[in-house]
Amino acid sequence: METKFKLVIEYDGTAYHGWQRQAADRSIQGEIENVLAVMTRREISLAASGRTDAGVHALGQVAHFACKTTLTPVEFLRGLNSLLPSDIVIRSCEAVAAEFHARYDARRKTYQYRILNRPVPSAVDHRFVWHLRRELDLESMQAAAAHVAGQHDFKAFEGAGSPRSSTVRTIFRVELTRKDNDYLIFEIEGDGFLRYMVRNIVGTLVEVGRAKLTPAEFGNILESKDRELAGATAPPQGLFLLRVEY
Amino acid sequence: METKFKLVIEYDGTAYHGWQRQAADRSIQGEIENVLAVMTRREISLAASGRTDAGVHALGQVAHFACKTTLTPVEFLRGLNSLLPSDIVIRSCEAVAAEFHARYDARRKTYQYRILNRPVPSAVDHRFVWHLRRELDLESMQAAAAHVAGQHDFKAFEGAGSPRSSTVRTIFRVELTRKDNDYLIFEIEGDGFLRYMVRNIVGTLVEVGRAKLTPAEFGNILESKDRELAGATAPPQGLFLLRVEY
Repeated sequence: METKFKLVIEYDGTAYHGWQRQAADRSIQGEIENVLAVMTRREISLAASGRTDAGVHALGQVAHFACKTTLTPVEFLRGLNSLLPSDIVIRSCEAVAAEFHARYDARRKTYQYRILNRPVPSAVDHRFVWHLRRELDLESMQAAAAHVAGQHDFKAFEGAGSPRSSTVRTIFRVELTRKDNDYLIFEIEGDGFLRYMVRNIVGTLVEVGRAKLTPAEFGNILESKDRELAGATAPPQGLFLLRVEY
Repeated sequence: METKFKLVIEYDGTAYHGWQRQAADRSIQGEIENVLAVMTRREISLAASGRTDAGVHALGQVAHFACKTTLTPVEFLRGLNSLLPSDIVIRSCEAVAAEFHARYDARRKTYQYRILNRPVPSAVDHRFVWHLRRELDLESMQAAAAHVAGQHDFKAFEGAGSPRSSTVRTIFRVELTRKDNDYLIFEIEGDGFLRYMVRNIVGTLVEVGRAKLTPAEFGNILESKDRELAGATAPPQGLFLLRVEY
């Protein structure tokens, strides 16, 4: 009989072409599946709560796999962590019900986006922030971000070429705070996210921070459902998938 | 006439054999001096507030150099940051009085040491923490750390083979706090530090956290001035020179 396992995964996405397995390029899914194949001597396919794009990080991505095995969750945890590269860490491994599905059962996801807002870049943190030299107007950005809370059609913030049957999502919490003087930390918690949605929201909030858009205009862009009006997509290295709840 | 410049420097020490210029290996001092030589077409020597050892990081190292130049501080700042590798960043550059000396005039330094205390390592933070799997007793470590405040002869925590004329130092502030659940952040501010002093204090505090020493025994080790009694030296990658005050 097969056992189903749930993994919580942390990764530094800098060196990877995203979550999804690729023919030629290194991916998070590919690295973990390869180690699982070594450990179980079977081909195992890993299903995540959702893909993360190239260069995006995770502190709490969730994925599941099923296989016939005598290995325990603790043995998988230790084996994976000793065989995976140091920029991928399995935070936990547990056996779950056969019905569990990392993607279909996800009820809530939280993303964080980190902006470093000071004249010079960071020597220790450059892999994990979007560095913006000119001072951003935090209060205007906070006023704009408030528009995102609640249920909306997020078509204006969807990535090009990624049509979905529904572009309506509910945002439970959205927060933008200053940290350690120079960091602006954006956190958003919702029942699901369209492709590039967080990075497009952040890119457009930055336009507000630069006084190129008012908070009200940000609200109008959301209402318009028109991708042409939103700002540029924020770069991947500031984005973290913090956690997935079931 | 020569102008004297003061630099505040941030670096990720992972790829370097410490601050001090070496014949064969990459060093922070060497990288910056090389760029200054390119910019000024002169040999320039950089004097830091003190050396940092291989693998140790800094958010606010201070150094000075003097040269005959028509370049302004802002031009040095921009030129250095565009020519240095991304793991070394000049935070600021200013012209200072001819008498200023980064080492002799330093009145106060603050170091931070970061411990990650959880069963699994961190994928995104492994370059910047000492990872300890087994849970440490924070309260005992805090009680022990309190012994360090004030003026003491720190001979027990001095690195081997680095005799100084005086091993007496004054610690103005010492703090150990939990952060983001799994991090223990040690901060220590003093009028100066012996070589390996912070890492030896942290290594011995960890023995207290593991219940191999009591807080009182930690105090006795400090009083003993005997290096043989102290714990192992904590590894370099958790240590940051936060700032130097003049």
